[in-house]
Amino acid sequence: MKKSQNLKLGLFLSVACLLLSATVFAETKAAEGAAKPVHGEYIDWRLLSVSHREDKKTLRAILGNDTAIAAARKEQTKPWPDGSILAKVVWKESTHPNWPQAIVPGEFASAEAMIKDSKKYASTGGWGFGHWEGGKLEMHDETKAKECFACHMPMKDNDYVYTFSALK
Amino acid sequence: MKKSQNLKLGLFLSVACLLLSATVFAETKAAEGAAKPVHGEYIDWRLLSVSHREDKKTLRAILGNDTAIAAARKEQTKPWPDGSILAKVVWKESTHPNWPQAIVPGEFASAEAMIKDSKKYASTGGWGFGHWEGGKLEMHDETKAKECFACHMPMKDNDYVYTFSALK
Repeated sequence: MKKSQNLKLGLFLSVACLLLSATVFAETKAAEGAAKPVHGEYIDWRLLSVSHREDKKTLRAILGNDTAIAAARKEQTKPWPDGSILAKVVWKESTHPNWPQAIVPGEFASAEAMIKDSKKYASTGGWGFGHWEGGKLEMHDETKAKECFACHMPMKDNDYVYTFSALK
Repeated sequence: MKKSQNLKLGLFLSVACLLLSATVFAETKAAEGAAKPVHGEYIDWRLLSVSHREDKKTLRAILGNDTAIAAARKEQTKPWPDGSILAKVVWKESTHPNWPQAIVPGEFASAEAMIKDSKKYASTGGWGFGHWEGGKLEMHDETKAKECFACHMPMKDNDYVYTFSALK
């Protein structure tokens, strides 16, 4: 083999190794990201209900902070007391690898919040709307909150909340 | 109207009222029963995952006791540590009255348990199987536990557990 051929082969192998390493690294990062998203404090809250939105192809868990859970168990949620926080955790739907008739959580999609403060959020039924971003709860401004609130109007008789507590 | 006719009408009305009262009472009891079943201690546990078994037409929440939750968050579940308890809470599927594309919990169906004790339950992969009956956890005998275990065999590589934790 000529010296120039050796050089070319060496260069080719180096570039191939670099590309392979980069791919493996990227895939590892993606897998880590998918496996362990950053969640907020709701991870330690208790469960109110679950749902499967077939139109959106998402599975959800609705959790409540201590104030919300206590109110739900006493059936004193018309209205929910000030200080109640509801968290809606959303995953893209997936199927269980060993049981394809079972729809299970796939990739984490979002976590949204409703916070009850009848004075602070009086213009939106006493509810503030927000979402967890990188584990931190960020509230929407009034314009965005009014958009959220509009979708909750059909539930006026249930204090604007779609969830009916299933675990009480 | 004759006296005997009055008597017959009186009797008829009395019986009709009794039947109506009994029906209303029975329906009220049924509604109360459906609205508030007796749950076990898992009501205060934290969430591992949710699922929708389309074949069984049921929605499920899978909760863990403190030992199980700590293990899931540290990703130390192969095997789950002794003392872990997993609760599978099952509801018949229903649709949301104001959002029919949303599958939500209907009637409470059952709550089942897997308890890890690698010595006590060595013949069934270290898992004891049971269910909550009227809020009280009752373990199955070994014959019944072996039936449960057989269905979990395909998940041997995941310590016989179908659930992959979604909230960690």
